[in-house]
Amino acid sequence: MRLVQFRRHGDGEGIRVGVERGEGLGVVDLKAFDPSMPSTMRELLGLGDEGLECAQRALASSQHVLERSEIHLLSPVLAPEKVVCVGMNYRDHCLEQNAPIPKEPIIFSKFPSAITGPYDDITLPTESQEVDWEVELAFVIGRRGKHIKEEDALSYVAGFTVANDVSARDWQMKRNGKQWLLGKTFDSFCPLGPALVTTDAVNDPHSLGIRCLVNGDTVQSSNTDQMIFKTAALVSWVSKFVTLIPGDVFLTGTPPGVGVFKKPPVFLKKGDVVECQIDQIGSIINKVV
Amino acid sequence: MRLVQFRRHGDGEGIRVGVERGEGLGVVDLKAFDPSMPSTMRELLGLGDEGLECAQRALASSQHVLERSEIHLLSPVLAPEKVVCVGMNYRDHCLEQNAPIPKEPIIFSKFPSAITGPYDDITLPTESQEVDWEVELAFVIGRRGKHIKEEDALSYVAGFTVANDVSARDWQMKRNGKQWLLGKTFDSFCPLGPALVTTDAVNDPHSLGIRCLVNGDTVQSSNTDQMIFKTAALVSWVSKFVTLIPGDVFLTGTPPGVGVFKKPPVFLKKGDVVECQIDQIGSIINKVV
Repeated sequence: MRLVQFRRHGDGEGIRVGVERGEGLGVVDLKAFDPSMPSTMRELLGLGDEGLECAQRALASSQHVLERSEIHLLSPVLAPEKVVCVGMNYRDHCLEQNAPIPKEPIIFSKFPSAITGPYDDITLPTESQEVDWEVELAFVIGRRGKHIKEEDALSYVAGFTVANDVSARDWQMKRNGKQWLLGKTFDSFCPLGPALVTTDAVNDPHSLGIRCLVNGDTVQSSNTDQMIFKTAALVSWVSKFVTLIPGDVFLTGTPPGVGVFKKPPVFLKKGDVVECQIDQIGSIINKVV
Repeated sequence: MRLVQFRRHGDGEGIRVGVERGEGLGVVDLKAFDPSMPSTMRELLGLGDEGLECAQRALASSQHVLERSEIHLLSPVLAPEKVVCVGMNYRDHCLEQNAPIPKEPIIFSKFPSAITGPYDDITLPTESQEVDWEVELAFVIGRRGKHIKEEDALSYVAGFTVANDVSARDWQMKRNGKQWLLGKTFDSFCPLGPALVTTDAVNDPHSLGIRCLVNGDTVQSSNTDQMIFKTAALVSWVSKFVTLIPGDVFLTGTPPGVGVFKKPPVFLKKGDVVECQIDQIGSIINKVV
């Protein structure tokens, strides 16, 4: 299934959860199908199998379908408790910067306020002159857990989506005592979407083409098979430290081709259009303003 | 006012907001006084002056008072969107480690899942052998804002509370690519409380005695006048990067006397009792288990 969050144009109903009939196709309004269902993805995931089974029935019903022109798609998750990010997690990205392959995951975070929708704008802050792109495979936690064993970890994952881990390199690399947080967490620096693709609908999340295009030019092109720590390892690792809950978002690291390592470096400017694509998951397109 | 969150023993009502009649005294149940009031501090702060004025009336009514023995005090804020932390923010703490005085605030974060109550246990993780204390003045945002000017910043602050920025030094300083997050964010590593003391009830938040005691021995003793970046400067600085919203928690840094810089270093062990005190705000006491 391809689960989404959306608002209907011109009404005040607020956030709704829907099920896409296919990438880019009409969306079944879950709460219209069953008014007992919640309005946000976090709440839906909190229901566990009950919520997902209802979404399956809604999709099968072919009723309550909204056309894409009627809705504004939002990030498939909003206001998660955590946005967990992984640094240096592609072999080819480590090679690009002559960095050793990490022996343990490197974990940092964004504030949830950085999240924006799959087709919303990335706002270039006046505080940075070095804003860069990073296409990443993201996944979303579906079930509460702590000290999760790697062999059980995939059952804690609800699904996958596409992220752009937008990064202000000046703040990430040169300021703030080398703590990456500020450079990673400006408002709008975490476009997500277009859909939360449930785990059963992805053949192998670690064998997917992953690309970033800036103004139509391919700047990143790799495969998720380059990931050093894969989904199950990351869930298990982070759950040593913190209790994971439904809606928690993981960004799993970026492949080579980021702007800061180009010679000379290239950064985003107003008017640029950034598209992040992952096979089987979808594509997000964000204009820089 | 001294605003708190609590649960009543032995009932299933869940979280409630209350007003303390004085530090350690009975608590007026806000929702019992006015059923239209919300059940959580984040929601109450979201109401702005309307919520605080109702809390004032509830306190003045002297009705619906619960004795301390009837309730379990929780952190005054739970599930904030952000826990913003400041590193190296006391002059005397920089001197302690021969570090230069920072020219800009150093900002890092904890996940909200680290928050625990003022008298709840700190769980020593098996993953760390170097868990340390850090008493800190915390403040809570009361009003949404971005790009807040320093001269306006205090009007965005709802009040102050006491925090222990519990820190696993091995993970903070030696692992995770030197990103502090993991060492700072184990579950239970952010005791907060006992009350959110509203700004009008604190004479000068930057002239308060601040102390940490471990098993009754004073290990940290300083004054908030040692803070390099004070409340208004921190609000203004962080709001350059992110939109602040009601409930966001700031931990403003710790004075000298942390265990890792003692010779030889001292770390917390099971059975230790850590008390963090700030004049006019209160005291939190957490057992290490």
